[in-house]
Amino acid sequence: MKANLEKALSQWKEAVGQEYVRDDEAMLDRYSWCNIPKSVRASAILFPADVDEVQKVVRIAAVCEVPLYPISQGKNWGYGAACPVQEDNVILDLRRLNKIHEVNEKLAYAVVEPGVTQQQLYNYLKEHQIPLEFDVTGASPEASLLGNILERGYGQTPYSDHFLNSCSMEVVLADGRILETGFGHYPNAKTRYLYKWGIGPYLDGIFSQSNFGIVTKIGIWLLPKPPHFGVFFFDIPDDRWLGETVERLRELKLQGVLTSAVHLFNDIRVISSLQQYPWKETYGKTPLPEEVRKDIQRKHRVKAWNCAGGLRGTRKQIRANLDRIRKSLRGLVRVHYLSDTMIYWLERFEQPLKKISGLDVRRRVSFLNLLRGIPTENPQLACYWRKRKKAPEDHYTPLKDRCGLIWCSPMIPMTGEDVLAFLQMTRSICTQYGFETNVSMNLVTERALDCVVAISYDKEDPHETLKASECHREILKSYLEAGYIPYRIDTQSMNVILQDDPFWQVCREIKRTLDPHHIFSPGHYNFPP
Amino acid sequence: MKANLEKALSQWKEAVGQEYVRDDEAMLDRYSWCNIPKSVRASAILFPADVDEVQKVVRIAAVCEVPLYPISQGKNWGYGAACPVQEDNVILDLRRLNKIHEVNEKLAYAVVEPGVTQQQLYNYLKEHQIPLEFDVTGASPEASLLGNILERGYGQTPYSDHFLNSCSMEVVLADGRILETGFGHYPNAKTRYLYKWGIGPYLDGIFSQSNFGIVTKIGIWLLPKPPHFGVFFFDIPDDRWLGETVERLRELKLQGVLTSAVHLFNDIRVISSLQQYPWKETYGKTPLPEEVRKDIQRKHRVKAWNCAGGLRGTRKQIRANLDRIRKSLRGLVRVHYLSDTMIYWLERFEQPLKKISGLDVRRRVSFLNLLRGIPTENPQLACYWRKRKKAPEDHYTPLKDRCGLIWCSPMIPMTGEDVLAFLQMTRSICTQYGFETNVSMNLVTERALDCVVAISYDKEDPHETLKASECHREILKSYLEAGYIPYRIDTQSMNVILQDDPFWQVCREIKRTLDPHHIFSPGHYNFPP
Repeated sequence: MKANLEKALSQWKEAVGQEYVRDDEAMLDRYSWCNIPKSVRASAILFPADVDEVQKVVRIAAVCEVPLYPISQGKNWGYGAACPVQEDNVILDLRRLNKIHEVNEKLAYAVVEPGVTQQQLYNYLKEHQIPLEFDVTGASPEASLLGNILERGYGQTPYSDHFLNSCSMEVVLADGRILETGFGHYPNAKTRYLYKWGIGPYLDGIFSQSNFGIVTKIGIWLLPKPPHFGVFFFDIPDDRWLGETVERLRELKLQGVLTSAVHLFNDIRVISSLQQYPWKETYGKTPLPEEVRKDIQRKHRVKAWNCAGGLRGTRKQIRANLDRIRKSLRGLVRVHYLSDTMIYWLERFEQPLKKISGLDVRRRVSFLNLLRGIPTENPQLACYWRKRKKAPEDHYTPLKDRCGLIWCSPMIPMTGEDVLAFLQMTRSICTQYGFETNVSMNLVTERALDCVVAISYDKEDPHETLKASECHREILKSYLEAGYIPYRIDTQSMNVILQDDPFWQVCREIKRTLDPHHIFSPGHYNFPP
Repeated sequence: MKANLEKALSQWKEAVGQEYVRDDEAMLDRYSWCNIPKSVRASAILFPADVDEVQKVVRIAAVCEVPLYPISQGKNWGYGAACPVQEDNVILDLRRLNKIHEVNEKLAYAVVEPGVTQQQLYNYLKEHQIPLEFDVTGASPEASLLGNILERGYGQTPYSDHFLNSCSMEVVLADGRILETGFGHYPNAKTRYLYKWGIGPYLDGIFSQSNFGIVTKIGIWLLPKPPHFGVFFFDIPDDRWLGETVERLRELKLQGVLTSAVHLFNDIRVISSLQQYPWKETYGKTPLPEEVRKDIQRKHRVKAWNCAGGLRGTRKQIRANLDRIRKSLRGLVRVHYLSDTMIYWLERFEQPLKKISGLDVRRRVSFLNLLRGIPTENPQLACYWRKRKKAPEDHYTPLKDRCGLIWCSPMIPMTGEDVLAFLQMTRSICTQYGFETNVSMNLVTERALDCVVAISYDKEDPHETLKASECHREILKSYLEAGYIPYRIDTQSMNVILQDDPFWQVCREIKRTLDPHHIFSPGHYNFPP
């Protein structure tokens, strides 16, 4: 094993250059930083410059039988960051593959490499004055677009399902071949980035949430800027109206009225993105006592549930949609609306508004802007929720600061009944382990709610870290038992979703076919070799 | 080979019953009927009753190494009907698997087997007064829903992309195992039919347009009935305005204004669904002379291009969308609108209206109704376009009547430039071989046009059949050279899209893994063994 690694390292150094093969302790340390409880240390980190070098690296890995763990930017926060699933992997960091190959303004797509970040594409569109937007996540502006697509992440706009809105991949296979999917393998195809399924078997899916190949290029569909944009929002004082509200939202979603993703955040979810845990007010006690919680709710004017979604179109279209939303939710909640003009003025007067109202207008507007594809660092403050020391003012470095965060993301049917059952389960377990219940429920698709439960803890506190780990294990078990299967999972819980059934058997069989030496990401959404 | 078949036949008879294993000449004849030029004869036809019997049949086929060609209803018209790609296959006709397992009214989905037809689901929803619709095609009401999904066909509503709007498959593998995709393999999953991607590799795609397994059950997403429905339509007198119109339609599609599929039909496409070829007026001459064409255009009030799309929502929403459509197309075309109330009255007064206007109102309304998911036989008249004998009045039997029809369906970028290049190419080749240019261009997705070119001929005329075959080969070749790759292909042209590249290599490798004895549909969207 060790001999193999040595051999591979020396060959890799020749292939990608001495300085791009790192196995010094400092670097290995840095790549082992992660916000889930268990860190996994790699044996080296490689930084190829382009696809050609990726192919070389892969061929060497195959001959030496050393497993590679490809990452794009390693910003898989809450799910394991850059850490491999298993020990003794070599991380293949693709950040130097950061070309934006093409932005087609007319046909509204971009072609990007793994290293291209949310911020980078945003800047590119701005600099070139291209009137297109893309769907962003609340994760770091430095997160990779391609990485998020492959994890099947989601965002806020009408293109919130990232995998759905991608088209045609370039994949380096375990033997170094380059596979182009969709119509991409017809050299002169004019519709490579325009039509998702291609002809013949649709292969792209098997390269998402898997370990069958390294995706080195992908098409991302972009959204044209609408004539007008606005945000509707409402809050719900307690759970009594929540079930019925979800029922009505589902009808609106199914009817195509809610074209953007709509988010339902509970109080802690909002509060934790506005401030850190009130250690002083609680005299260090956790979880958050009810009275303090009420105080903070009032301070930030946050209710038990806080809902927001974007609306796009002409003023007339937005008004017609808003009317229908209001009519549907009448008697349950009061729906407010902020037009783009209003958001513009809020941004201009954030300082005086903050003085008058005491509200952090900047943070709230940055969330609204997420709904139209503007990346922001602000939601990351949530990583610091349970930290004793103060979060940085500007640039957050949650991994370095040992912020603890585990995300658990079950999909539940979009019904009132399931929402309440899910919440009861979640609250009871979180409370039992000493954590606040931090939940968002997101209407990304028409029929299921993408839920995210965040377990925030201080990774510098070993006891709290242990509790977080136990809490996560328990909560995940309960979801699986209840039939609320997660849509995505952290690198240390992969084994929980694996079972001996024909689905996972077929995954293993495809793995053996495409990667017979198991050199790609052992154990990543698949049984380890 | 023959000995193997004999052995298999006797075992199959035991497994599914004597009467459901047919190899009599009459039956083999009937299953060889197809409307593309080359018919392929099967060596037997099996009719299993359920999944259990399908598994038994498959296991016997694997042991005896006899290839099976599964069909749902065999209505793959224009693309090869029920005919296998190669000789000596045994057709596995799944029409007896025709259970509607579930219709979930709240979460808007149905779970169906391969034998369930468009008409059957339509009737089911009507009988049970379930206020849901589904996307239909203009093909036979007796066409299978599942079969069309697997061929990645499309229809007319907001759910026009059939594969996209399906969720979780049950697949019988070549060794008889049953694979359940999406969340379906978690026995208690509550979101099996609610969330498409599941967790881990997304496998469903590899069972569409392929030969890796037999899909025996699938979830289909249904549409809630909208408060109001209407149709906008316009025509374009000649190609001069076509390019710019397509440019504006793309913008509307990208902006999310055109939520349903929008169809652009050329004159012949519309005329051929209203009448047969005017043999008398042309004195038997083909292709259609220009003067006669103009006369028929006037008679049916059809223009060079005829466009229609559905609108859904409250009256206010429809008005706002319609306004935007009209504003966008102003100066190019005049957009008309028919509300649901108007369609209702048209239907009631079709007889007097026909008398007054001479227009076949019934046929036109039936097309409008397709836009809201009501299946109809009417478009099938187009199969009879070039037949000398008169088409039946009521129930069409185009295979039996030896109607010739080949569909060629390239995807082209949704730009004016590509539309004009595509049309020029198509017209020049069709005319050269003596056929009318019969084209529809469909805005199913946001960036590419799903085009369908129909070559209609009389299969009883050997010379015309040969010409049709040559015309098709030539046209397909030109599309591939121009980079307009088809989204789907007929069973006798599969070899044209295969090439020795990593995409098709990987397809072969997966095939070898999942079906080592090549018992499923040899040559179907894959290299033959």
